Amino acid sequence: MTTVLVHAGRDGPQWQAQFARIAPDLHSVAWPDAIEAERVDYIACWSPPVNFFGAYPRVKAIFALGAGVDKLLSRPDFPAHVSLVRLTDAGMAEQMLEYALYGVLSYQRRMPAYAAQQMRAEWRKHPPRSRGEVRVSVLGLGAIGGVIAQGIAALGYAVGGWSRHPRSLDGVRCVSGDESLTTLLERSDVLVNVLPSTAQTRRLLNHERLSRLPRGAYVVNCSRGDQLDAQALVTLLDQAHLSGALLDVFDAEPLPPDSPLWRHPGIQITPHVAGTTLIEPSVAQIVAKIRDLESGIAVAGVVQPERAY
Amino acid sequence: MTTVLVHAGRDGPQWQAQFARIAPDLHSVAWPDAIEAERVDYIACWSPPVNFFGAYPRVKAIFALGAGVDKLLSRPDFPAHVSLVRLTDAGMAEQMLEYALYGVLSYQRRMPAYAAQQMRAEWRKHPPRSRGEVRVSVLGLGAIGGVIAQGIAALGYAVGGWSRHPRSLDGVRCVSGDESLTTLLERSDVLVNVLPSTAQTRRLLNHERLSRLPRGAYVVNCSRGDQLDAQALVTLLDQAHLSGALLDVFDAEPLPPDSPLWRHPGIQITPHVAGTTLIEPSVAQIVAKIRDLESGIAVAGVVQPERAY
Repeated sequence: MTTVLVHAGRDGPQWQAQFARIAPDLHSVAWPDAIEAERVDYIACWSPPVNFFGAYPRVKAIFALGAGVDKLLSRPDFPAHVSLVRLTDAGMAEQMLEYALYGVLSYQRRMPAYAAQQMRAEWRKHPPRSRGEVRVSVLGLGAIGGVIAQGIAALGYAVGGWSRHPRSLDGVRCVSGDESLTTLLERSDVLVNVLPSTAQTRRLLNHERLSRLPRGAYVVNCSRGDQLDAQALVTLLDQAHLSGALLDVFDAEPLPPDSPLWRHPGIQITPHVAGTTLIEPSVAQIVAKIRDLESGIAVAGVVQPERAY
Repeated sequence: MTTVLVHAGRDGPQWQAQFARIAPDLHSVAWPDAIEAERVDYIACWSPPVNFFGAYPRVKAIFALGAGVDKLLSRPDFPAHVSLVRLTDAGMAEQMLEYALYGVLSYQRRMPAYAAQQMRAEWRKHPPRSRGEVRVSVLGLGAIGGVIAQGIAALGYAVGGWSRHPRSLDGVRCVSGDESLTTLLERSDVLVNVLPSTAQTRRLLNHERLSRLPRGAYVVNCSRGDQLDAQALVTLLDQAHLSGALLDVFDAEPLPPDSPLWRHPGIQITPHVAGTTLIEPSVAQIVAKIRDLESGIAVAGVVQPERAY
């Protein structure tokens, strides 16, 4: 009987119950419940303890319970010969679209300025901005970025997108390559970052690149904290070069209580909730992929180690 | 030559220039520029000085440069025999949709809770809410409310609407009448008020009705301040019966600096900017209506004094 071991922290039993519900023919176990290590065919996990993987010698594939796989890939105990499969959407993209749209509306309707005025009990109107004049740029145009870019474009905003490899999306001005990134940044009123975390994207949004954004621009980061130089962001906010930022991810999470980001008036903080892994669609996706793998069919979402996503 | 007198405060010259641009055959003048009072056929105005109207004895119709006409109608100098024509949309509805959607996203993505946590540097996640489980109710289903209700429904939220007179809108559960309002409130996670300001709607959202909202509900008011009992709102926020409010309109505007609303952590304040009158579409609409009136054709938006909208 094909056996799946689930490691999902406190939520493990909930995940296992969903496997049992929709795939009673699979043997599913929530760690640390008893299981013969030799029998584990598949592992579904997010952040298991150190040296977790070495205990299961016959595992055929490992499923990441999230879209970002950088933390798992960089673990020394991750078995090099085993495929890592990430969730390719599982309801996350639509959540990320909502989050990004909230940031776009915050910029368009000048909510950071009105929030600052509210602190001073100041009643002052600023000129309206139409959707068509708000230029939104999405960095990363995969399963998540594509949904964000097209969802925002469908509402009438002027949307561009950047990706490492060329992409084409209806209604979105897509560019790729390092040089086009600079040009795109210069034309971005709202920058939405959903790039995967790799060696290439680390600190991609540094002071030099963030400075290319036009005066008054707004930054939404809902991918990984290490891609954004938070100190550069603060500097540009303090100089009023940027008008605000909506941040969901940070170098260290939980964000330490003494981080100055918490108290910056131009920064709105959420605790890594832009896209939450939803149990039902995620388990459905993993079960379908296990069935394909058992039948020798290739599946989507297998991480390519050289690209790291 | 048909003559239009424009009174739009500091923006008067901009409005007049737009009339001159798109309708050079009309004689348009921005108050207080010289004009023979007897020659004024139409007035386009928002908030002219006291006793303004008495000076123009031959005026055929007065155009309000906004959607709400309560202030103009209640003026003692408003000529009883002259039609008051309001703007029926002129770009305002789409702006109001953006504003309401920002409120809906704030509720759905628990932004008031995360903002409160940010003040305490507290990293704590709350369970996600899907769009389909967020029940949004729009009060007022005219040219503005209809666009809001259908726009939000199109994104996947569960939208209901209430109006004095029965309406029907695709994708929106429409109800009318006093009794159905109470039932609707009991099923509203987000309440969006865009009712016109009339004797019937004054303090419609009082303590009793706001209490009917389910625990944790969120209120968006972007119509008129007098429809909402702000003290009742504050009480219900303080009791954590409501989770937040987004307010654009107030009993007194500008909102006085000593109003406790400015400093309430559950209230987000904007200075009556949810729907701004846009010069281009507004002038186009007024010109079209002047041409119809000059040809003896009835126009939309004529205020019925007994309904006051």
